[in-house]
Amino acid sequence: MTKQYLMTPGPTPIPEKIAEAMAKPIIHHRTPQYMEFTKAVNGNLKKIFKTANNVLTFTSSGTGAMEASVVNTLSKGDTAVVVIGGKFGERFAEICNAYGVNVVPIDVEWGAAPDPSRVEKALKENPDAKAVFTHLCETSTATVYDVKSIGNIVAKTDAILVVDAISGLGSDEFEMDKWNVDIAIGGSQKAFMIPPGLSFCAVSKKAWELVKKSTLPKYYFDFKKYDKLIEKSDNPWTPAITLVIGLEKALSIIMAEGVDNFIKRHMRDAEFVRQYLKELGLEIFPKSPSDAVTATKVPKEIDTSKLIKSLKAKGVIFAGGQGELKGKIFRIAHMGGINREDLERALGILKETLKEENIKV
Amino acid sequence: MTKQYLMTPGPTPIPEKIAEAMAKPIIHHRTPQYMEFTKAVNGNLKKIFKTANNVLTFTSSGTGAMEASVVNTLSKGDTAVVVIGGKFGERFAEICNAYGVNVVPIDVEWGAAPDPSRVEKALKENPDAKAVFTHLCETSTATVYDVKSIGNIVAKTDAILVVDAISGLGSDEFEMDKWNVDIAIGGSQKAFMIPPGLSFCAVSKKAWELVKKSTLPKYYFDFKKYDKLIEKSDNPWTPAITLVIGLEKALSIIMAEGVDNFIKRHMRDAEFVRQYLKELGLEIFPKSPSDAVTATKVPKEIDTSKLIKSLKAKGVIFAGGQGELKGKIFRIAHMGGINREDLERALGILKETLKEENIKV
Repeated sequence: MTKQYLMTPGPTPIPEKIAEAMAKPIIHHRTPQYMEFTKAVNGNLKKIFKTANNVLTFTSSGTGAMEASVVNTLSKGDTAVVVIGGKFGERFAEICNAYGVNVVPIDVEWGAAPDPSRVEKALKENPDAKAVFTHLCETSTATVYDVKSIGNIVAKTDAILVVDAISGLGSDEFEMDKWNVDIAIGGSQKAFMIPPGLSFCAVSKKAWELVKKSTLPKYYFDFKKYDKLIEKSDNPWTPAITLVIGLEKALSIIMAEGVDNFIKRHMRDAEFVRQYLKELGLEIFPKSPSDAVTATKVPKEIDTSKLIKSLKAKGVIFAGGQGELKGKIFRIAHMGGINREDLERALGILKETLKEENIKV
Repeated sequence: MTKQYLMTPGPTPIPEKIAEAMAKPIIHHRTPQYMEFTKAVNGNLKKIFKTANNVLTFTSSGTGAMEASVVNTLSKGDTAVVVIGGKFGERFAEICNAYGVNVVPIDVEWGAAPDPSRVEKALKENPDAKAVFTHLCETSTATVYDVKSIGNIVAKTDAILVVDAISGLGSDEFEMDKWNVDIAIGGSQKAFMIPPGLSFCAVSKKAWELVKKSTLPKYYFDFKKYDKLIEKSDNPWTPAITLVIGLEKALSIIMAEGVDNFIKRHMRDAEFVRQYLKELGLEIFPKSPSDAVTATKVPKEIDTSKLIKSLKAKGVIFAGGQGELKGKIFRIAHMGGINREDLERALGILKETLKEENIKV
């Protein structure tokens, strides 16, 4: 059996200890025993989000939490500024459109980060805008956005700042409270080292004020239903028990390392990957690369799908491009359970493969 | 360590083979390898639902799929008939209310099944009603409803029949197509023997006609987005990979036994539990008991929470009553991974405990 090096930006490999915790006999969710897990998760998630706000946990993919951030804060006919520089910016715009929210798009070249002054301009031109939607890392382009500067701008207005931090959280530097982020969104299958199926929304006081006024319809993702029970470490619906138990274990591993050490390790691994690729003669695609995932430009001579297939046969699983980047980039994740040793081995296999296929870069 | 007998109506125990399948190294969801799992799941779910319709799989608790059945078929101001005979009937009404759908309630005494003629009457009095919402098993009262007769009535009208079969599916007899059910809803943590986190909607042609006209807003639960990809065994969002892999294993175990044998075994186990309880002098609560879960009346002299606690200390976990039945009943599930041997042992412990606590019934 070839060892598998799963290096996609979600799912990421599940460390053995976490897989074991999830494989234990299942317990009921309305028991003190389970609520202890929930309590620990709720407390430790705050440390990752760097917030004093509650972090609500949903059973859904990240898209569910993105929808939750729209339906809980806005009303039909409201205006929202949406930064669109990749597939996930497009997704925020689609969700707004589905709910009758007017979108003021800030179109950004794929692979570039938005200039924060464009957010300032959009808010000045649209003083009625209730929210700005953007990302920490736009996963499709592996680009990190300057959330801190955007936060400074949005904080001076009545609008809230909603940040999809799904792929970046735990890998890219992020400070929810210090950076004036009002809703921060996370997902389980990234730096959290557990399978997909959980998503998160941390919600600021400013955002709660909008929640009170929001009239968009909601039920399953209704923030109020979750927040009402969070102090009791309870959940309005049957939660994804095994995933929450896995998350408790994952967070205890991260806490033992220390959140800042955990993030710094991602920074060093990301830098290592970027240097290695440059030495191979490959070009990093984004102008401001994320520390969660690296996107590499593929020279025209290279058949990307063939390269990804050759690597896969050797156990190395990289992701291709999405949307307009299909065939133009490949992406290597270095988050969560992906460690330096695995990165070295996988990049070594990439080097060999490029040589074997006689690809000069 | 005391062996645990988890006999709650969700979650149910996870057989070892299924836990092992879920603990294997995770794979990426946009791969032929994963799509094989999805394909097998999609095919075998049809056999459990007894339908030729596609069964859509969501990452959510059952409540998410209940919401999906409303938002995909109805429009604001539409009228829906909702059978309310327990906590989950109330939930359908709450979802309709949240989305501006007018509810014509059929209030049923908790523990009784609705007389199908009341559905006929409600539809005659409300000829504009677009849908009837009801249950196969109302989990909170452990009552099975006569879906077949209700299906005959609704089929003669323009309304669709939506059945929450979350707890009943796989345990209570159910025939989606033969019984004229238009949307059948399932959940993973019941007879399917896997942890909570997946929910299902099987959708009939008649329901798809309503989907085309529905204007309620939706995105994450949008049927069309799932259906568009189902033929490719793909999913619009990152699915709960490990749960789907567990489900594939569970369904293969059920198929090896045969769907009808699987259901007949539940019928026999349910009958065994009911007889045992009657011999202990306890009274079965519902008038038409489900084969998924049994609810037992608790004589006034018995302190239910104390009894449930004493049993828990011995490893036997039964569920109490919900809503207005709190303290009045306890519920024993006999679905999925709960086998006869475990039921015998757990009921034996119940018998001992009643004797020890000097409870005469």
